[in-house]
Amino acid sequence: MARKRLTDAAAAGMLAESALIAHGRGEAFDYLLGEKTCDAARHAICETAARLISAERCVISVNGNTVALAGPQLIACAAVLNCPVEVNIYYRTPERMEALISALNKQQEESAELYPELAAKIASVQILGAHPDGRIPNLEGPRANCHFEGILSADTILVPLEDGDRCEALIAMGKTVCVIDLNPLSRTARTASVTIVDELTRCIPILLEQLMSGSISHDENWSNQQNLQDAIAVMLRGLD
Amino acid sequence: MARKRLTDAAAAGMLAESALIAHGRGEAFDYLLGEKTCDAARHAICETAARLISAERCVISVNGNTVALAGPQLIACAAVLNCPVEVNIYYRTPERMEALISALNKQQEESAELYPELAAKIASVQILGAHPDGRIPNLEGPRANCHFEGILSADTILVPLEDGDRCEALIAMGKTVCVIDLNPLSRTARTASVTIVDELTRCIPILLEQLMSGSISHDENWSNQQNLQDAIAVMLRGLD
Repeated sequence: MARKRLTDAAAAGMLAESALIAHGRGEAFDYLLGEKTCDAARHAICETAARLISAERCVISVNGNTVALAGPQLIACAAVLNCPVEVNIYYRTPERMEALISALNKQQEESAELYPELAAKIASVQILGAHPDGRIPNLEGPRANCHFEGILSADTILVPLEDGDRCEALIAMGKTVCVIDLNPLSRTARTASVTIVDELTRCIPILLEQLMSGSISHDENWSNQQNLQDAIAVMLRGLD
Repeated sequence: MARKRLTDAAAAGMLAESALIAHGRGEAFDYLLGEKTCDAARHAICETAARLISAERCVISVNGNTVALAGPQLIACAAVLNCPVEVNIYYRTPERMEALISALNKQQEESAELYPELAAKIASVQILGAHPDGRIPNLEGPRANCHFEGILSADTILVPLEDGDRCEALIAMGKTVCVIDLNPLSRTARTASVTIVDELTRCIPILLEQLMSGSISHDENWSNQQNLQDAIAVMLRGLD
């Protein structure tokens, strides 16, 4: 199902050339996880929910693979959080931006059908990305472009499948960055404030449930490094 | 470089939709190998060279990713072995077969430029695949199609990046099947006679050198399972 969604998205011009290769890397790590959400990932999902709920301003930053795999579910998360969704892609072209924003606009309706109890809030989720009016410092080229109302002014960002450079730049701005990355050794995974080592379509529904429950269980002793070690331990058992 | 070759090949119609995803899975396992040819892989390359040299009839079976990444080098291996190269793909369409055979015909010239000492032999390597006149038993659909002069009558097959079903069917025919697969846990890796757990473009030049040296160092106690365990041990250290 995931592969079909991605090859369809590629045909629709939503993905960069290397997006399918990146997805394949994720599949291999997920294979080592036994294609299950491990305890370490559940812990990281709880921590992400707590940080998003307690944020002053948060935003969900999405790229092509994220929109293709879990757009409607992420819009529902944004609805619960009353925050915008911002398209922010590494290889920014006007065509891809337009394809992604138009896909998200359609997914907004799909999301309201999937979660009728959130329909009103879903309809008012802002989709940002088309007219960036700010830049992420210390990043060159179009990949630095962002919205003041979104990424630039947010103190907390949920960004599935982020690139290492941009993750570092966001952390350097003092933001709380929650990522979803199946590779616990990646620069993104090691740089983020909270890394959920899990497959996107499996963990987002769990995150949404946590957000809807509204119960905040922030771990005062959160160690992202320890959590990554715990995820690596699961993969070591999978490989062995 | 590899990603560029593959995205170019995809644009040229040489690859199935899921080929880039498969390549990405390989990249993740190669990351765990430290992107180096490990001792276990060197041992498997020696064993593959020995089996190919001692075969009565051998063949090199190629798919889209293989042609894109290492076509000229594999043609040179076929030249040394005096055997054909056969295009054998899982998702067989006339368009993809034609694109691959035409790419191999061009690569034959490229190969002769890369290895001038083999030029005469390279020019006489047969490229099979266009007019299959046989079938691999116990496989359904077009993926079973093959040439009598190639796969069907060979006792030994070198097939990089093979699919699990077809690997099992070839083994069931009593053939010696040497594969190249970065995932030591895959069905192909576990089914083959000899599995080289290494990246294609890194191991083929080593194999070619072995074939050209002509020295056979067949391991009478070859255990593919043990070799896979040795490769997994390298990955476990990489992950840990």
